[in-house]
Amino acid sequence: MNNEQVLEQLMGRIVGPHEAVAAEASAHVDALTKPPGSLGKLEQLVIRLAGITGEARPCFDRRAVIVMAADHGVVEEGISAFPAEVTPQMVLNFLAGGAAVNVLARHAGAHVICVDIGVNADLDHPELVSRKVRKGTANMAKGAAMTRGEAIEAILAGAEVVSTEVAKGTQLFVTGEMGIGNTTASAAVMCALTGTAPVSAVGRGTGVDDVGLQRKAAVVSQALSVNAPNADDALDVLCKVGGLEIAGLTGVILAAAANGCPVVVDGFISTAAALIASHLAPLSAEYMIASHTSHESGHAALLSELGLKPMLDLDMRLGEGTGGVLSLHLIDASCRILNEMATFASAGVSGGTNETQPTESSSASADSSVQGEVSS
Amino acid sequence: MNNEQVLEQLMGRIVGPHEAVAAEASAHVDALTKPPGSLGKLEQLVIRLAGITGEARPCFDRRAVIVMAADHGVVEEGISAFPAEVTPQMVLNFLAGGAAVNVLARHAGAHVICVDIGVNADLDHPELVSRKVRKGTANMAKGAAMTRGEAIEAILAGAEVVSTEVAKGTQLFVTGEMGIGNTTASAAVMCALTGTAPVSAVGRGTGVDDVGLQRKAAVVSQALSVNAPNADDALDVLCKVGGLEIAGLTGVILAAAANGCPVVVDGFISTAAALIASHLAPLSAEYMIASHTSHESGHAALLSELGLKPMLDLDMRLGEGTGGVLSLHLIDASCRILNEMATFASAGVSGGTNETQPTESSSASADSSVQGEVSS
Repeated sequence: MNNEQVLEQLMGRIVGPHEAVAAEASAHVDALTKPPGSLGKLEQLVIRLAGITGEARPCFDRRAVIVMAADHGVVEEGISAFPAEVTPQMVLNFLAGGAAVNVLARHAGAHVICVDIGVNADLDHPELVSRKVRKGTANMAKGAAMTRGEAIEAILAGAEVVSTEVAKGTQLFVTGEMGIGNTTASAAVMCALTGTAPVSAVGRGTGVDDVGLQRKAAVVSQALSVNAPNADDALDVLCKVGGLEIAGLTGVILAAAANGCPVVVDGFISTAAALIASHLAPLSAEYMIASHTSHESGHAALLSELGLKPMLDLDMRLGEGTGGVLSLHLIDASCRILNEMATFASAGVSGGTNETQPTESSSASADSSVQGEVSS
Repeated sequence: MNNEQVLEQLMGRIVGPHEAVAAEASAHVDALTKPPGSLGKLEQLVIRLAGITGEARPCFDRRAVIVMAADHGVVEEGISAFPAEVTPQMVLNFLAGGAAVNVLARHAGAHVICVDIGVNADLDHPELVSRKVRKGTANMAKGAAMTRGEAIEAILAGAEVVSTEVAKGTQLFVTGEMGIGNTTASAAVMCALTGTAPVSAVGRGTGVDDVGLQRKAAVVSQALSVNAPNADDALDVLCKVGGLEIAGLTGVILAAAANGCPVVVDGFISTAAALIASHLAPLSAEYMIASHTSHESGHAALLSELGLKPMLDLDMRLGEGTGGVLSLHLIDASCRILNEMATFASAGVSGGTNETQPTESSSASADSSVQGEVSS
């Protein structure tokens, strides 16, 4: 098989979630001692997780954040507040455990997998996953960022990282990235696939000023004009105005979905990859969990386009997977709610006056493992 | 001293945060390997925590959620979807460890302190903190909910729970509550102190329908009209249209502030208590951490009134302290960021082109305890 066929086969493995298991989880959620729906998004979350995994009591002991790093030729247009040399420097910081995503991943009990999918430097480290497709993209303001073949190669590299991890027992993935210039590429992807005006899609990234913001919008406009990406062909959009880390994360998302694993989508760049994945394989969206709304201007609109509702509102704009790993505690919390809360029947609590009263027989669902931890 | 003098003395102990320590934390945050401000609210949070505690590297090993339970005479107006008997039933559920707040507190490493401050039932349990001021409030639609003396007694009972916990080493508090009818009382407090129209302050609580919502607004209007609470006297508002758990939580907040401890404010009812605390002692607001925006209509406006910015957006409307304990992971995360991230200097990462380059001397702040956990 050639790479295009391998990609088709991967996408063909993505099926919808287990509706019956989700319904079973939903019924249990409604029997718990709380007004129906009162735990809001936590309830919807755990019901979705049950459907995604096919397990009525989902639990994610082993999880990984995959940080895809790559460079962008478009930085020569002066669209970033940081120089391109920061990409390899930050890769070394990830590998040393000193970046924000490392700290937050430790806090969340996730391991960090750092992938060189296209950094414009020679990197060598025993912990680095080297899958360099090319040394950064070409400048999309002057032509295609990469070839279609390179985009597919990067997608499959991302997918392979996931399948290797699944074989080791990893049950849940978080998307992360590093690449100076990648909010510009992500904005271009958003504009090409959704018709958003560049001025509405670009944001301050790591911190450009007003002049820099205007320059970003102009560069995105130029890239779209020069390359004329086909909105009906997400691969065409990806290779012409995307990035290698965006392609790698597209592969991560598709492979997570193909393996029945939830994939937590981080910020603007990750969500651009999610948008491409959903265009390539619409059912992949069923496996995506939104973590936070980033401070980057286009992010909320992009999440809305995907029908995803973020849980954290922290004004973050760092990327790396930081918002994604922060949301793992909420995922774990939702799973514990399902496993540990008493039901109306087991606790002897009256139901709402507008609700059907729980029957005595449902007291069988009382969880005897619950230990009181109340202290005075 | 009489109770009024004890309360005055408590409030007199509340001083502003340690500005120099906050500034020190802020400088360290800006030296970490990330664009300035890119961790958004997490940065502001840990800087505030440093100022509150006076510790440049704050850490909260022992924390408690205080769940104040009380009944409301106003339930006889038919303003709740659940019957009043649910208040004592849920207290027993808290004590057995089966409620949502128990599960989420275990997840967050917090202990639950359940206080009977005014439940309309005789409760006896070795773990229950019994501080019953009276068996529920009177119906505020017909007269004052309680006397001024009872409100002060309940405030001091809440403060005493905090001081007992501080003596045991507890460093951080979360507010929680249970009381059928208490969103109606909280809406009345909000209207009385902020001038909000009842129709904008009332929400669906645990689940009333459209007719129930109109009835709640009418009952709040009537309570305000019958009692004419004085907006310039928060104690007058509290005793006439508040509740015993609202008073108890007011005491929790004032005592946390007096002891230099951060206090995480949960949902609508807790925020009504925070509003009263801020009217009684404006500096107490410096110690409040907002956790989530609840689904209850008036909550966002109430937080905004207090200048508090919530971090979680989960559409929750359960109370108990559930949103508060969920946010503890974010508080811990912000503390770890400060302790564990590399600096630009220590990691050899270039600063932003618009930023002052960090000097070599700041490499002394590198944290040698950081362990790489990157795996392939």
